[in-house]
Amino acid sequence: MKIFVLNCGSSSLKYQLFDMKDESVIASGKVERIGMEDAILTHEPTGKEDVKLVTEILDHTTAIEKVFNYLVDPKYGVISDINEIEAVGHRVVHGGEVFSDSVKVDAQVKAAIKGTFDLAPLHNPANLVGIEAVETVLPGVPNVAVFDTAFHQTMPKKAYMYALPRILYKKHKIRRYGFHGTSHKYVSQKAAEFLSKSIEDLKIVSCHIGNGASIAAIDKGKSVDTSMGMTPLEGLMMGTRSGDIDPAIIPFVMEKEGLTLNEVNSMLNKHSGLLGVSGIGSDMRDIEENMDSNENAKLAFEMYEYRIRKYIGAYAAAMNGIDVLIFTAGVGENSNILRKAITDHLSYLGIEIDEEINNTRSKQVRRISTPNSKVEVLVVPTNEELMIARDTLRIVKSSK
Amino acid sequence: MKIFVLNCGSSSLKYQLFDMKDESVIASGKVERIGMEDAILTHEPTGKEDVKLVTEILDHTTAIEKVFNYLVDPKYGVISDINEIEAVGHRVVHGGEVFSDSVKVDAQVKAAIKGTFDLAPLHNPANLVGIEAVETVLPGVPNVAVFDTAFHQTMPKKAYMYALPRILYKKHKIRRYGFHGTSHKYVSQKAAEFLSKSIEDLKIVSCHIGNGASIAAIDKGKSVDTSMGMTPLEGLMMGTRSGDIDPAIIPFVMEKEGLTLNEVNSMLNKHSGLLGVSGIGSDMRDIEENMDSNENAKLAFEMYEYRIRKYIGAYAAAMNGIDVLIFTAGVGENSNILRKAITDHLSYLGIEIDEEINNTRSKQVRRISTPNSKVEVLVVPTNEELMIARDTLRIVKSSK
Repeated sequence: MKIFVLNCGSSSLKYQLFDMKDESVIASGKVERIGMEDAILTHEPTGKEDVKLVTEILDHTTAIEKVFNYLVDPKYGVISDINEIEAVGHRVVHGGEVFSDSVKVDAQVKAAIKGTFDLAPLHNPANLVGIEAVETVLPGVPNVAVFDTAFHQTMPKKAYMYALPRILYKKHKIRRYGFHGTSHKYVSQKAAEFLSKSIEDLKIVSCHIGNGASIAAIDKGKSVDTSMGMTPLEGLMMGTRSGDIDPAIIPFVMEKEGLTLNEVNSMLNKHSGLLGVSGIGSDMRDIEENMDSNENAKLAFEMYEYRIRKYIGAYAAAMNGIDVLIFTAGVGENSNILRKAITDHLSYLGIEIDEEINNTRSKQVRRISTPNSKVEVLVVPTNEELMIARDTLRIVKSSK
Repeated sequence: MKIFVLNCGSSSLKYQLFDMKDESVIASGKVERIGMEDAILTHEPTGKEDVKLVTEILDHTTAIEKVFNYLVDPKYGVISDINEIEAVGHRVVHGGEVFSDSVKVDAQVKAAIKGTFDLAPLHNPANLVGIEAVETVLPGVPNVAVFDTAFHQTMPKKAYMYALPRILYKKHKIRRYGFHGTSHKYVSQKAAEFLSKSIEDLKIVSCHIGNGASIAAIDKGKSVDTSMGMTPLEGLMMGTRSGDIDPAIIPFVMEKEGLTLNEVNSMLNKHSGLLGVSGIGSDMRDIEENMDSNENAKLAFEMYEYRIRKYIGAYAAAMNGIDVLIFTAGVGENSNILRKAITDHLSYLGIEIDEEINNTRSKQVRRISTPNSKVEVLVVPTNEELMIARDTLRIVKSSK
């Protein structure tokens, strides 16, 4: 069974085509600058030559049509007929309180996704455009929506409610949702499998550290807390996002600098984090390269590490213990320096890592803790697309 | 030596007169509704009858004059001459980055306190009014300013900087300061003394849980992190303050509800916390009384407890361990239910409390952990006024 996985942004999309027989990726690619005369389509068929097309692509439907043409192209194609695609899985950022699992798309689901536009104004509209484009191009093929928030819907009320007037929850659904759920779910399951343990027996802290970053507390396989909140701004310091700050800073800065609501959002989301503190950039590789010579880069690294460590400690307290600590996503998988800095200060939890193993690179799941460590510390490469494909397969099968 | 300790609010003041020979309080009291025709002065001389006066008191200088009259009054007085007061210690909320210790007040110090008005617009102006009133009424007597922020000035940069554009720190001094420093310092020293240990050898997490609430990580006697930030809004859920929220909620709510900056500040500071969630009140005693029958009170308690616990866990990670856990201030000293709920979920740190001792009330320092507990858990009644008196004595002596 072939499953197409689609992740739509407002002017871009990314895709992977899976053969679920062996969960292999038979093609992947992306389209950038949708809406422009010089949009760029990059198609990467497994085992064949890559191809790049620069052309006018004015909407997502056209973009998807062009991608599908490549999928069946004599030279660049990987399937002979587009109808080999039996289902399409869509990444949808915000599922609000409605979706605690992936779901087959119908009119009601689309209406509910529209109902969350307020909570994710940058993402959900683009995600819905993607769904409707596929409905046009591939009529009759089931679409499945996989939500970034769904995995965290198991959080207890004490973890998801803010200490704000209750009316804000009732009227505007202001609460903590959490994101990166697909990744946290994938790596926690993968970790249990790797350790040959039932996830029911594990207290896991999962650190998804990429350009966006969040940590989840996963008890018996269920998310019980996570660092992102109503939006992906809360929690850790990120590439360009501030993470947690004193809320009083916002009215203070708005008044002092005469900022509008848009400007303050832009400041917190695009000009803060590693970029704002270091003045160098938002990429951890640039920070690490410069931290010996540049004081601001050093501070940015130290803050970044310190804040991850405190969340790990907080979630150990949330679950009354921790059995497994997972690092994943771009920085989490690749920065041995960051992993060492964090774990060096967690010996009070009985954590001990093997420096040599920590320093080796690999695309496989690996244990970086020593046999003596009281907590298993793992690096687990995340694969949100595969998780979406698996969920799509599961939902399509169960709805038959 | 007699030391007068003064804590001025915008329309009220509280005072204590200490005899430093044995650190005893020989009189205490307060003036409320300053600026009104029916201001209320309550004077409580130790060993004598209390007295209450309702009269017109239009400014702080007059209020202090009337208090001093009572101090030497034939019937209600405790000293024979006002000149027995050899120094006055003032609580000043915000010392900015200028003051890392208490200081004898001179023109420069007053200018520096004025320089922090922006950071504490509700408190520092009133504190300065109190200093100037005493200068008028008791000329020549040294005044000492004791700052709520000073103890936390030892925080490392990684703990006090926000992940915001650097210009905000340079231009507006936006950083974390922390508050309740006088209390955290007092109880941590008291704890070391009680345990007959050098504070240099201890990693202490100090929970000051009153109507305002903050937690400090104290390593070798120095504050290395604390939960309040630029203002006392950040951190824990409090009586009426939200504590930490997703910063993105503020522009979101301002837009949805058309709130002004003042309204949003008021919402976060006065209508949130226990009050906002429970809908019942801001006092933990009311919450505990109602939590069995009222779902919202139960949620408020659970959130309150959970968030304290996560900070304890975070600070254990910040210091790579914890030797002593302190509970202090109104709720911390009196709520055995809260202390039990928190420590029950910290057994992963080796914490074990003795329920019977936890349930007894006392005004003394006491250990509520069992002999087996790996962390000493103490209830330490705080005494900010005494700490201010001690600091005043120390500063006056050292400046002679």
